[in-house]
Parts: sequence; structure tokens; C-alpha cells
Amino acid sequence: MSRPDRRLASELRPVRIQRRVLRGVPGSVIIETGHTRVLCTASVTDEVPAWRAGRGTGWLTAEYDMLPASTGQRRERNRGGRLDGRTQEIQRLVGRCLRAVVDLDALGERTIWIDCDVLQADGGTRTAAITGAYVAFRDAVDWARRNLGLSGDPVCGQVAGVSVGIVEGQPRLDLCYEEDSAADVDLNVAMLDDGRFVEVQGTAERRAFTSRELDRMVRMAASGIRQLHAIQRRALSSGRTLRGRRRRR
Amino acid sequence: MSRPDRRLASELRPVRIQRRVLRGVPGSVIIETGHTRVLCTASVTDEVPAWRAGRGTGWLTAEYDMLPASTGQRRERNRGGRLDGRTQEIQRLVGRCLRAVVDLDALGERTIWIDCDVLQADGGTRTAAITGAYVAFRDAVDWARRNLGLSGDPVCGQVAGVSVGIVEGQPRLDLCYEEDSAADVDLNVAMLDDGRFVEVQGTAERRAFTSRELDRMVRMAASGIRQLHAIQRRALSSGRTLRGRRRRR
Amino acid sequence: MSRPDRRLASELRPVRIQRRVLRGVPGSVIIETGHTRVLCTASVTDEVPAWRAGRGTGWLTAEYDMLPASTGQRRERNRGGRLDGRTQEIQRLVGRCLRAVVDLDALGERTIWIDCDVLQADGGTRTAAITGAYVAFRDAVDWARRNLGLSGDPVCGQVAGVSVGIVEGQPRLDLCYEEDSAADVDLNVAMLDDGRFVEVQGTAERRAFTSRELDRMVRMAASGIRQLHAIQRRALSSGRTLRGRRRRR
Amino acid sequence: MSRPDRRLASELRPVRIQRRVLRGVPGSVIIETGHTRVLCTASVTDEVPAWRAGRGTGWLTAEYDMLPASTGQRRERNRGGRLDGRTQEIQRLVGRCLRAVVDLDALGERTIWIDCDVLQADGGTRTAAITGAYVAFRDAVDWARRNLGLSGDPVCGQVAGVSVGIVEGQPRLDLCYEEDSAADVDLNVAMLDDGRFVEVQGTAERRAFTSRELDRMVRMAASGIRQLHAIQRRALSSGRTLRGRRRRR
Amino acid sequence: MSRPDRRLASELRPVRIQRRVLRGVPGSVIIETGHTRVLCTASVTDEVPAWRAGRGTGWLTAEYDMLPASTGQRRERNRGGRLDGRTQEIQRLVGRCLRAVVDLDALGERTIWIDCDVLQADGGTRTAAITGAYVAFRDAVDWARRNLGLSGDPVCGQVAGVSVGIVEGQPRLDLCYEEDSAADVDLNVAMLDDGRFVEVQGTAERRAFTSRELDRMVRMAASGIRQLHAIQRRALSSGRTLRGRRRRR
Amino acid sequence: MSRPDRRLASELRPVRIQRRVLRGVPGSVIIETGHTRVLCTASVTDEVPAWRAGRGTGWLTAEYDMLPASTGQRRERNRGGRLDGRTQEIQRLVGRCLRAVVDLDALGERTIWIDCDVLQADGGTRTAAITGAYVAFRDAVDWARRNLGLSGDPVCGQVAGVSVGIVEGQPRLDLCYEEDSAADVDLNVAMLDDGRFVEVQGTAERRAFTSRELDRMVRMAASGIRQLHAIQRRALSSGRTLRGRRRRR
Repeated sequence: MSRPDRRLASELRPVRIQRRVLRGVPGSVIIETGHTRVLCTASVTDEVPAWRAGRGTGWLTAEYDMLPASTGQRRERNRGGRLDGRTQEIQRLVGRCLRAVVDLDALGERTIWIDCDVLQADGGTRTAAITGAYVAFRDAVDWARRNLGLSGDPVCGQVAGVSVGIVEGQPRLDLCYEEDSAADVDLNVAMLDDGRFVEVQGTAERRAFTSRELDRMVRMAASGIRQLHAIQRRALSSGRTLRGRRRRR
Repeated sequence: MSRPDRRLASELRPVRIQRRVLRGVPGSVIIETGHTRVLCTASVTDEVPAWRAGRGTGWLTAEYDMLPASTGQRRERNRGGRLDGRTQEIQRLVGRCLRAVVDLDALGERTIWIDCDVLQADGGTRTAAITGAYVAFRDAVDWARRNLGLSGDPVCGQVAGVSVGIVEGQPRLDLCYEEDSAADVDLNVAMLDDGRFVEVQGTAERRAFTSRELDRMVRMAASGIRQLHAIQRRALSSGRTLRGRRRRR
Repeated sequence: MSRPDRRLASELRPVRIQRRVLRGVPGSVIIETGHTRVLCTASVTDEVPAWRAGRGTGWLTAEYDMLPASTGQRRERNRGGRLDGRTQEIQRLVGRCLRAVVDLDALGERTIWIDCDVLQADGGTRTAAITGAYVAFRDAVDWARRNLGLSGDPVCGQVAGVSVGIVEGQPRLDLCYEEDSAADVDLNVAMLDDGRFVEVQGTAERRAFTSRELDRMVRMAASGIRQLHAIQRRALSSGRTLRGRRRRR
Repeated sequence: MSRPDRRLASELRPVRIQRRVLRGVPGSVIIETGHTRVLCTASVTDEVPAWRAGRGTGWLTAEYDMLPASTGQRRERNRGGRLDGRTQEIQRLVGRCLRAVVDLDALGERTIWIDCDVLQADGGTRTAAITGAYVAFRDAVDWARRNLGLSGDPVCGQVAGVSVGIVEGQPRLDLCYEEDSAADVDLNVAMLDDGRFVEVQGTAERRAFTSRELDRMVRMAASGIRQLHAIQRRALSSGRTLRGRRRRR
Repeated sequence: MSRPDRRLASELRPVRIQRRVLRGVPGSVIIETGHTRVLCTASVTDEVPAWRAGRGTGWLTAEYDMLPASTGQRRERNRGGRLDGRTQEIQRLVGRCLRAVVDLDALGERTIWIDCDVLQADGGTRTAAITGAYVAFRDAVDWARRNLGLSGDPVCGQVAGVSVGIVEGQPRLDLCYEEDSAADVDLNVAMLDDGRFVEVQGTAERRAFTSRELDRMVRMAASGIRQLHAIQRRALSSGRTLRGRRRRR
Repeated sequence: MSRPDRRLASELRPVRIQRRVLRGVPGSVIIETGHTRVLCTASVTDEVPAWRAGRGTGWLTAEYDMLPASTGQRRERNRGGRLDGRTQEIQRLVGRCLRAVVDLDALGERTIWIDCDVLQADGGTRTAAITGAYVAFRDAVDWARRNLGLSGDPVCGQVAGVSVGIVEGQPRLDLCYEEDSAADVDLNVAMLDDGRFVEVQGTAERRAFTSRELDRMVRMAASGIRQLHAIQRRALSSGRTLRGRRRRR
């Protein structure tokens, strides 16, 4: 019943958040959680989609994709005109999570584009994307305040995400791919720094789950996300790359 | 703080499940929950997708769509080659829920196609689709046992779904469109007849939600789904159309 | 040489037109001709396509589709970005027929959207769509006069359609699917209430047809359509659903 | 009431059919009717579509398109993945007309591809395509008999097409673009050399038409097509290009 | 080592440029080089693409395609929504070459559309397209000066193109298809009448090439293009079709 | 006339090639040339495309794309079903260059997939892609020899690429974006380690170029590529990341 990398059931993988990885991009972050590595960028444009124009309010949208080699086995690109369902689902999730921490009125008629591109996939890419995107977003907003005359701060919260699963009957935090493939139940959670939830998505992969299991998984996720919030804050408070320590609890 | 149709916070809308609404289709159901009306069909083909062929096991897949006039305002058809994200998300949800109650090995190399087409939309179409699709699915399996020589019963559970939301600070069961548009939080739940969950999807629409609110909403959903299970069973035990009574609790 | 349902060669199937089947839609009709069942809706928007804008005149357009289970065997949805030819042909036909009875100048800069979705297909879906769409269209125009301040009446005629075929050497009115599949010749006709034709489309399916056969089929169609006009009128004059009697001639 | 080119109401435009216009193509024809010019080719492949394979029988299919400059005003190419409805309608029509004169069993498991590309459009392109395609098809079948060991003759009839319209109250044969744009009624007819019809497609463009007008237009079309049959035969009997004489009647 | 048509290594195929082949099109040319035949048209519209609007300057764009039968074996049309790479590459090349000889400011806010459609392909279609398109373009500009009030002459050079290849170790000018298929190296060159190059595209098809071979091929191309410039000029100075003589050098 | 980064006209930007940047991918490289950064991977599958199957020979194909934030300004993803022309052109170029150094017979029925994804674009991405892809390809072949039982060495050459342009009248090696935008002429060259060329693509961006300028640019490119060959070899001979020194000449 031990985990592939010998972590405790309630232990996160090592997390590392590198900021400013691309020149000339308002926010650009590489987040690593274990072997999962996601490039998250935040760009700002002076327009909103046509259906929101003229209201003096902004917009935030997100796109997610995986590079073809990110899974080891080559994966076809999303080029056929029809986006696969998983990709679409994830980018909608990321968009909702980030919109939960932005005051669109304070943003003015601007759009923030979040792009999350998975360089290497080892489980948990969607929640790593949320966690990394927040940092890129925070940087992009600061850039817009310095460079686009954005006054006030449209950032109204801090968000991070993590996955929990039931593997071999046991709830485990932050599954790697090997565990994810064997999980009976899969739960993705995004939470604010005030402890309130933005998304709770639990799915029976191999078997259904009880109310008690749901409760236990949600608590495990919340505890993991609190650690991720701290890692985000440290990354943002430092000019340098920060490596999140493993923390046993 | 009263609801538009004066229901109690924990009260379902009237539910009606009509079976055998189309001739020559193994399973065909119209489910009405309040003004929401969804046509759910289940068809059976003697093939599985190429990527599953040759394993002696079956497949179940679902598609969801809304007729153009179903929302009152005309809505463009999904014909442009790119399925909108909401549609794709919902049909993936319906597929997962129904796969949770089918033993694909017992099905043999056959595919069950679930099609959920919304005739009229007044909130809760995705959970109505799950609830109705189960009945069509059950009928289609029985048809296949009589007509395709399917032996044994691949149905291994009963599933239904319902939505819950927080509106004006109050958790409410089975939102209609007017409430849905005003909801702060939106939760969709699918549950088996043994009380275990298949899907729990909670989303902050206007504000984040606490762990306690999540818990309360999940319990409200579970109670509603138990009633839906009973309505499904009565529909299936009768040759006739059944109208679910309002039940106050 | 008798017909599958023992009708006379020149006899229509039973026709039933239900109005107001969807709440909040200006015109919504379910037309049944035998086992064929088509949902026809008419919606009104306050815009015209860009290529017609600014002329003070309106537009009417139609879409047609079949629900996946409508044919018994599951049929793939038109989602691939490329509409199949038959669908496109039919929706163009329906559009032309309805435009023949609307005065677009009297409509003003509005668009009427006709949507015909086949719930169950048993032959003659395209002509049932025309016949049902007229009733939905008439209702939608009346709605627009009451609710959008449309003055005058842009409806300038009444249109209905029917199919005729040559089966086993014999011209027959209103083919069901079984006959349609065996027909040598197929003719679809749409006609106004003044007896003039809007569309006459005759096609050699298995063998070519003589001028005399064409003439005979056209007359048989005209006679059937006169009955359909009466059924449309009765449906419109009543608040209730009307069932068209079989009428032998 | 005289026609733009001073023809009689029942007179065809000058017709010219050039054979063997492309090297190395089994059948290749340029047909000119007045200023309308269509390149029609017939190619033969040793396969049939997957859905017809293994029956020992052949297939014939047709595609139609207009070159961008063919209408004088540049017209966008059909490249967007969605074929426009008119193009699809016409190529289906051409395919049906040619399938009416081929014995697919005698063809064996081969496909004949008809391609009709409008070089210059001045009305009547769809019927010119039918008339020209027949000649290319006849040549391609003869080529296949000489080169692919096709025994017997799968050609079982001769087909040509023409348009008729009602312009300024008068039925006229073979409309040019100027007349076509002003026509109240438009009728396209394809007929075999035994006088039987393959397609009769009459449409009210500006006003509906009576049974008597239909009859008159159909007879006018039949007379024109008999002349086209003669021109096709002369083109085929000669190695050289033939120019169809104007013939007054 | 002799060429299939016994030409000298440095000899062009016979070239023929027919102007005014389509009525009502500002510029329309059929260019034949050997058996290769390309229809080149130039149309003028009074708009520029949105991304160039409002600058008072014009645009020129080109499209290229092959008719399905042009290669002898039937080739699928570019209709699937995804243009094949070769087609896209060629039309970008043709566009760049023609933009090299137009002063877009002098053109005003107009677009020139170049369309090159290969009627018959026997090698060298892309360079024939460039050479023919120049003549159509020149005619279209003159037409616009006469008919659209374009003042001044936006044509600022003369461009033509030719291919060279290394076949059996020998550089050869203007490859036909048979040679092209066997070529080790393939070079396409477009050059102005002042001897300067617009495009030089050399590709190793079967083996890489030395600097010396490149040099020799470029010189051979330049000599061929000078002859094409003369043929273009003669075509333009005559009202009639001109046939380019073979010229041995 | 000095360059933005003060390089000599014939000087490369600093080049750095990191190997093994992704776990579990046969070949994965990040190449940096100045600020341009491209992730190049090489994957191996045990199949060839259907049109090459059954010949016992392999295939190599390449895809290229830019991440949305790679250019500073956000760039839309290639998801619409229609690949933009520049992207398609570049990936075809990369594919041809790598196919020039692989013996497809020696590869057996396997496909090598080259993926080049631009992380940061500052000019020269297509040639950096070629140079980096070669290293990933070399690693992937070695991996296949160790892991897939590939015997012999299908690598039959070494290839690298560089751009040259004429800026302010002066030929310059390896343009950065700022120079590229201002260049009159643009030349991309790919060359083998024996000094022979695989691709030479020169384009007049703002003005045409003389034969002499072409010659000078080609020599400048050749000299730059010889340095890149050395940097590739050093990267491959070391287990570690290598940083190419600036070398003045």
C-alpha cells in the first residue's frame, strides 16, 4: 500500500514555481509538481470579446493543451478543428478558477489570456495549471498596473488546486500518473486562501464513493491546497525561483 | 425568499417520465422536470469503437444537445465542426454516469448509444438527461436481451441526478432557469440507488462556498435523488406513463 | 399491390397537427403523418443577415435535421462541420417554400427562423416539415404582431407539401418509409392554397418516368395537398390539437 | 418581350461540345452553351466506396464547382470545410442523372468520377454539366473497355438536361444569366433519349406556377433536350469538335 | 541522357499565352508550357482585408489549385477545410511574386485576386502560374485604370518563373513531370525583368547539392526567365494569342 | 549600421543545446539561439502512414508550432481546423531537412515524429528547429537501437540550418526578430556536414536581390552552419548541456 515515490498518503509531491521564464510576456511561470511540468502564461490585450464589449468591464479566458511528446507516447495535436472533450473541459475549469479571483470591473475593458501548456505530464496537470496560472496572472496584473495605467488591483483572492484519489482503498493526495491510472475515484479541488471552494469535481472512475469518502477527500485536498497557497506566496515574494519543500504532516 | 413556483427549498419540481415514445427504438423516454423536457433514447449497435475492438467487451457513449428553440430564444445548432464546451462537458458527464451502471463485459461487443436532446430547457437539463437516460438504457438492455440474444443482465445499478444551488444565501434543490441564473453556487450530483456518488460537481458561480455549504448541498441532493430513483422504478414497473407526485418533506 | 397500411393509392396517412407544444416559442408545432413526427418551430429575431441589412426588409430561413434515433437505427449527428447533402437540400427546400408565402417587406428588418427536427421518420419528413412549418410560421407571425408591434400581415399565402411515388407500377400518395424504399420514382410537391405550385421535384429512383406519369403524380399530389390545407386551417382555427381524419376519395 | 440575344422563346443557345480536351484523362469535354462553359471530366478508379465494397458492383459519383472568376465577380472557393448548399445540390443532381444511364453491375467494382468545373457561368451551368458529363462518361467507359478489360457496355441510356423559365410571363428555353435573374419560375429537366424523365425540378422564384404552366415548360424542355441528344451523338460520332447549329422550330 | 521530348538541357518547352479567355473578367489568361496548362485570372475588388483597412493602400493575394482530373489520376478536391501543404505553399509563393511587382500604395484601397487553376499538370505548374498570372495581372490593372478610375500605374516590374532540376546528374531547364519525378534536386526561381531575383527555392529531393550546382542552376533559370519575359511582352503587345517559339541557345 | 546586439555581420548569436529535457521521450532538446528558444522532440512509433505500409521502409514527419505567448503578443492557437500557411510551410521544411539525413530503409517500418514547439520567438525559429531537431533525432535513433532492436544506423548525415538577411544594405547572419522585420531579403539555408545544401530558400521581402547578393548570402550561411554542426557534435558527445561559445570570424 505504499506510494510509488514513497510519499505519505497526505503528502504533496515537491513543487517548484519558476517565474519570468519568458521575456516580454506579462506573466510566465513554469510549475513543476513531481515530474509534471506546465508552462503557464498570462497575456493582456486591450479588447474584450464582442459579446462583452461596451460595458466597461473586462474578461479572463484560459486555454490548455499538452505538447505532443508530453506524455511519453506521442499524442496528436488538437488541430482537426474539433477540440477533444478533456482539453475543453480542463480549459473551462482553469478559466472559471481564475475568474473567481479577478474583479472584472476593476480590470476595465481588457482581456487576460491564460495559456497552460503541459511540457511533461505525470498526473495532476489540470490542478498544476490552476496553481501555476494564478502566479502568472498575479504577475500579469502587476505588469498591467505598471505599464497599462491600470489603477487599483483587480486581484481579489488567491487560488490553487490539487487532486485527490482513492487508490487501493486509500485516499491519497496529489496522484502521479501511475496512481491516477489505478484510482477508483478522482477528485479535483480548487480553493481560495480564505478556505472556500471554487471547484469540487469528484468522479467515480472504477467505483462509486460514499459521502464519508467524499468528505475525507475534500479535507485532504484543502490541506494540500493550503500548502500550495504558501508556495505561491513565497514564489511571488521572491524575485527568484523557489523550490517548495516536501512537508510531511 | 420564496421560490418562483412556491416550492419548498428541498422540494423537487414535478417529474414525469414517459417511456416508449418512439417506435422502433430500443429505449426512448421523455422526461419532464417542471418545464424542462428532454428526449432520451438508447440505441444498441453490434460494434464497438475501433480502439476497443477485439476484447469481447462493450461500450456505452452519450451525446447531448439542445434543439434550437428549446431555450425560447433561438440558439445556433452545433454544426460548425467545433462542439461548444458546455455541450461536450455535459455529454461526457452523462456518459460517465451511465457507464457507472453497466457491466461492459456482460454487454459483449456491443455499443449502447445514449442520446439526450433537450426539447425545452428550464434549468437542470443535464441532470434530467441522466435520470431519463437511465430509464431508456434499462429498456434498451431489456430489448437487447429479448432481441439480440444478450444473456445475463449488464445493468449493475440505478443512477439519477439532480442539481442544487445556493440562491439568495439559501441552498435549494432542483433549480429552475430563473433560479439557476441567479445562483451563487451550482452543484450537480449523480448518485446510485445504494447511496454512493458517481459525480459531484460543485462550482462557484458568483461566490465561493464553504465546506459546510458543500456538505449541506450534497445531502439535499442525495435526498432528491432518492425520490428520483423511486420515480424511475415506478416508470419502469408500469407499462404506462407515470407522473411523479410532488412530495413535500 | 395493396399498401402496407391498406390505404387507397390516393389516400393520405392520418395527419395530426399539435400547436403550442413548447412554452415561450412564438410558433411550435408537432406534425404527425402516420408514424412520421416532426417538431417545427418558428422563432423571430430583430436582425437580418449582414448581406440583407439596411434595406428595411426581412428574411426567413429554415433548418432541418433528424434526431439520431429518429430512424430506428442510430444515425450520426451533423456535427462534423460538413452538412450532408440530403439535409442541406431539404432545408433549402423548406426555406424556399415558406419564403413563397411571406411578404418580406411587410416583415420589416426581422428574421424568421424555421427549425424542423424529425423526432420519428417514416417517410415524407420533408413534406411534413413544410406542412407543419407553415402552421408554426403563421403562429409566429401572429405572436410578432401582438408582441413586436408588427403591423399588417406579412403572410401572403398558405403552403403545404406531400410526396407521391410510383411503387409496383402504381402512383401512390404520401409514401411511408417501406414504400419509399421500394419506389421507382419519387415526387415531392409544395402547393399554395390557390392551387399554384411552389416546388415540383420529381426524381427517377429506379427507372425514368414518362410525361404522362408525371402528370398523373402531380395531380395526385395536388389533391392531397388540398386536404392538408384544410387540416392546417382547422388546426389554426382551433386552440386545441386537431387530428386530421382519414378521408377516402 | 424579345430575349437578350434575340432567340425565339423555344430556341436553344448555340451548343459546342469539344471532346478530348485533356491528355491522359479517360473522358474530358468542354461544353459551351452560349457563354456558359463547363469542363466535364470522367475518371475511372479500381475501387468503390467502403460502403459498397465486396458486392461486385460499381459506383458513379459527381462533383461540381465553379472557378472563382467564372461569374465575373470573384466568388470565394469552397474551401472552408462546409460546401455551400447550391453546390451540393447540383452535384447530387448530376450524379443522379448519370447513374440513371449506367448499369453499375456491368461496371464491376470500379468508380466513375464525374467532375464538372464551370469555367464561365452565364446561366444553365447545372444542365450544361449534365449534358457535357454524359459525353465524357461515354468516352471514359469506352476507354475502360479498351484499357481496363471491361467487357460489355455499362452505358444503358443517353441523358441530357436543359433549363426552362418563365420570364415576363413567357416560358423560355435555356435561360442565360440575365434572364435567369429575372425569371419568375425556374425548371430544370433531365431526360433520356427514349423521352422519359430522370429529373424534373421546378421552383417558384418570384411567383408560383400553375399546372398548365408546368406542363408547357416540361414540353419545351423535352423538345430542347431532344436537340441536345442529337448534338451529343454527333460529338461522339466524330473525332473532332462539333459545333451545334442553332435550330429554329 | 537525352530528355523525354529531346529538348536541349537549357531549352524551355514551347510556351503559349492566351489572353482574354473569359468574358467579363479583368484579366484572364491560359498559359501552356508543354502539356502543362494553367488558367490564371486577376479580379479586382474595392475592398482590402480588414487588417489592412483604412490605410489608403491596396492588397494582392493569390490562390492556386489543381482541377481533380488535371493529373490524369483523379485527385481529391481541397474541400475538407484543411488545405494541403503543397497547395498552400504554392499560393503563398505566387502571391509574394506578384506583390513584388505591384505598388500597393498606387493601387489604393483595392484588392487584386489572382487565381491560378491547373487544367492539366505536366510539371512546372507553380512557375507557369507565376508567369501567366503576371499577364493577367497586367491586364487587370489596365482594366482598372479604364474602368475604376485608377490613376497612375501600380505595376512596377515584370515577373516570371521557371523550374530547374538536376536529372541524371545534369542540370535541366523547365522539367516536365517525368523528369520532375526523377530529379535529384529541384529549384524554382522567380525573377524580375531587371535580372534581380524575387524567389530562389532549391530543395534536395533525392540528394543534396553543392554550391557550384546551385550556381549553375540559378544561371540556367535566369536565362530561361529572360525568354519568358519576352514571351509575356509579346503576348501583352498583341491583341491576339501568341505562341512562344522554341528557341535553342 | 551596427546590429542591435552589437554582433558582427557574420556572427551567430550564442547557441545552447540542452538534451534530455523531457523524461521518457526518446529525443528531447531545447535549443536556444539568442532569445529564440525551441523545444524539439523526436518520438518513434512502430507504424508508418497507411500510404507507405507494407514496403518494409520507414517514415519521418515533422510538426512545428508556436506557443501562444512565444511572440510576446498573444497569438491564436492553430485550432480552427485550417493550419496557417506559414506554419505548414515551416513544418514541411523541417520534415524535408530531416528526411535528408535518414535512411528510411534502414529504419524499418517505423515512424519518427519530430515536434518543434517554439517557446520563445526572436527570429530564426525555423532554422533553430532544424538544428535542434537533428540532435533530438540522433538521440531518438540511438534510443531505438537500444530499445527497439533497430540494427544498423539509419542516420546518414548531419544537418543544421541558419538564416541570413540583407538589412540596411548589408548581408547579416542569423537575424533576430528586430532585424528580420526590417530585412529587405530573407534567406534560409539548411546544409549537411559535407557542405552540400538541403534547402536554399531566398525571398525578396522588400526588394529583389542580385545574383551576387545571393552568392554572398549563401556563403555566409554555409560558414554559420559549419559552426552549428560543431555545436551539435559537442552537444551529442557530452552527457551534459553545452553552451556554444560566440565565435568571431
